[in-house]
Amino acid sequence: MPKDFIVDLVEGIKKKKSHVCVGLDPDFERIPGHIKEMAINEYGPNRRAIGEAILNFNREILEAVKDSVAVVKLQIAWFEEYGHWGLKALEETISFAHHKKLLTILDIKRGDIGSTASAYARGYLGEVNFWYGVKKKLFNADAVTLNPYLGGDSIEPFLKIMKENRRGAFVLVKTSNQGSKDFQDLQLKNGKLFYEHVAEKVNEWGGDLVAEAIPYSQLGAVTGATFPGAAEKLRKLMPKSYLLVPGYGAQGAGPEDVVSFFNEDGLGALVNASRSIIFAYEKEKYPDQHQWAARQAVEQMRTDINDALKKAGRLAWD
Amino acid sequence: MPKDFIVDLVEGIKKKKSHVCVGLDPDFERIPGHIKEMAINEYGPNRRAIGEAILNFNREILEAVKDSVAVVKLQIAWFEEYGHWGLKALEETISFAHHKKLLTILDIKRGDIGSTASAYARGYLGEVNFWYGVKKKLFNADAVTLNPYLGGDSIEPFLKIMKENRRGAFVLVKTSNQGSKDFQDLQLKNGKLFYEHVAEKVNEWGGDLVAEAIPYSQLGAVTGATFPGAAEKLRKLMPKSYLLVPGYGAQGAGPEDVVSFFNEDGLGALVNASRSIIFAYEKEKYPDQHQWAARQAVEQMRTDINDALKKAGRLAWD
Repeated sequence: MPKDFIVDLVEGIKKKKSHVCVGLDPDFERIPGHIKEMAINEYGPNRRAIGEAILNFNREILEAVKDSVAVVKLQIAWFEEYGHWGLKALEETISFAHHKKLLTILDIKRGDIGSTASAYARGYLGEVNFWYGVKKKLFNADAVTLNPYLGGDSIEPFLKIMKENRRGAFVLVKTSNQGSKDFQDLQLKNGKLFYEHVAEKVNEWGGDLVAEAIPYSQLGAVTGATFPGAAEKLRKLMPKSYLLVPGYGAQGAGPEDVVSFFNEDGLGALVNASRSIIFAYEKEKYPDQHQWAARQAVEQMRTDINDALKKAGRLAWD
Repeated sequence: MPKDFIVDLVEGIKKKKSHVCVGLDPDFERIPGHIKEMAINEYGPNRRAIGEAILNFNREILEAVKDSVAVVKLQIAWFEEYGHWGLKALEETISFAHHKKLLTILDIKRGDIGSTASAYARGYLGEVNFWYGVKKKLFNADAVTLNPYLGGDSIEPFLKIMKENRRGAFVLVKTSNQGSKDFQDLQLKNGKLFYEHVAEKVNEWGGDLVAEAIPYSQLGAVTGATFPGAAEKLRKLMPKSYLLVPGYGAQGAGPEDVVSFFNEDGLGALVNASRSIIFAYEKEKYPDQHQWAARQAVEQMRTDINDALKKAGRLAWD
């Protein structure tokens, strides 16, 4: 019987001593030329070759970072952009990540009404209806990200399938972009900020999904590293939620910005960096240094965060 | 040179005398048995056959409703659920709809940070980067739906590509589900409801995208028919936005509920029904009556809405 996503995640973090999540945003334009050439040589300059180039790039990045992280985040937009060939590369990237014993968070940010939300939940985290009543796993991601705008009944179908399949999800609470201020920061009549209200709801929805083994819930939240001032409040509002913290690296946040997203136990936050790791090779002399560059970047980030946590007395190990 | 989406839409609505949008939510479980059997006979009980069954069902529904509506809405979740074979069926359904001179709204409800939003916008409404600097249209939808939770800078990349490609979008403002009350109905410190504030932003963002020929913007809004009490206010806050109004039929709203979503000119709203039309055959004796049943249902809905508008003195024709 599989363990809960959140139990696997915490175990993996402790084992690898790494709070880093590598984000795979495989922007086709930025994939090293030699990987593209190999794909074109095999399939010609068509859409299938684009899918192959994306998949091969992902495989090489996963090989490079697999000892430095417990989990990777796949941003589905960069696959979807290329239609069904892109989605095929996504399915195969998830399989490959699992083969390398990495957990996968699929960054889909979906939110829709009940029956539609169920379709998404079945496809990404559960089992879809197949022929003759058979059910089959499809994308088989370990966790997804969700958009809360449609309210509780849009999250409910995910909670149900998360329970049945022991999977996880992270609800957008305070996102890392500057525009997140437009709506998320609005002040409500009762004095709270809008995102604080969402955080309370996440805490409520996730209460039923706290793992027995550890005091963390299968339902986490997305809280941008670019707004460290909000961290302490958010941490208090959702004490049992793991926080997925994007915005490190290319978006500007550094190690000192993420410390307050962690609990006293030195756990509770997963810091994501995407472009600054997977495209680290762009600062190097040779494009075939992409694996070396990614490994250097992720190791640096791992060390920097651990050092900052140690300084703050919140390191979960040694 | 193509016309603006919104100009084509209004022309089509007038030509067909129909404010109805048929929603394609091709739930595989509910597709008539004989269509599934044909697919299995051709490909065997595999995922490719599921994609074929979905595509063939869509084709038959589109044939059945093509004279009764100007536009169809495709809910991407029901395709995505089946991974790359599902997305292939979606790409081909959009092509087929265009072949039948129908406009397509792709119900994706996406919302993400800048560079990621650009990837979605390129894929669904614009052109993606192909080999050797070539750009190609991919999904080629005429319009999409968008989730505003991430704020203005998550909408901006869509506005840019909508302008370049003369496409449309509908931003979620007040959705048709009961749970929409959880966040969208929260009262702000300044006394406004949250969704009213979003409506004002939609009006602002869309100001730059008002078509020259008609006083409507390429940027519309989603406003649920299930909350007719909100219609008048929303109509005033976004006078130049076309309102995509879901919730008719299976979700409970009727013709009298949608009248207030229209402007005085008898335009400005597009009323969507999905399951009550495409699965209307389930109430009939024979499953191969699916085309007949869908045509009956859409014609009934068309007439009912026109009658209600006529009674209110808001019929745009005769």
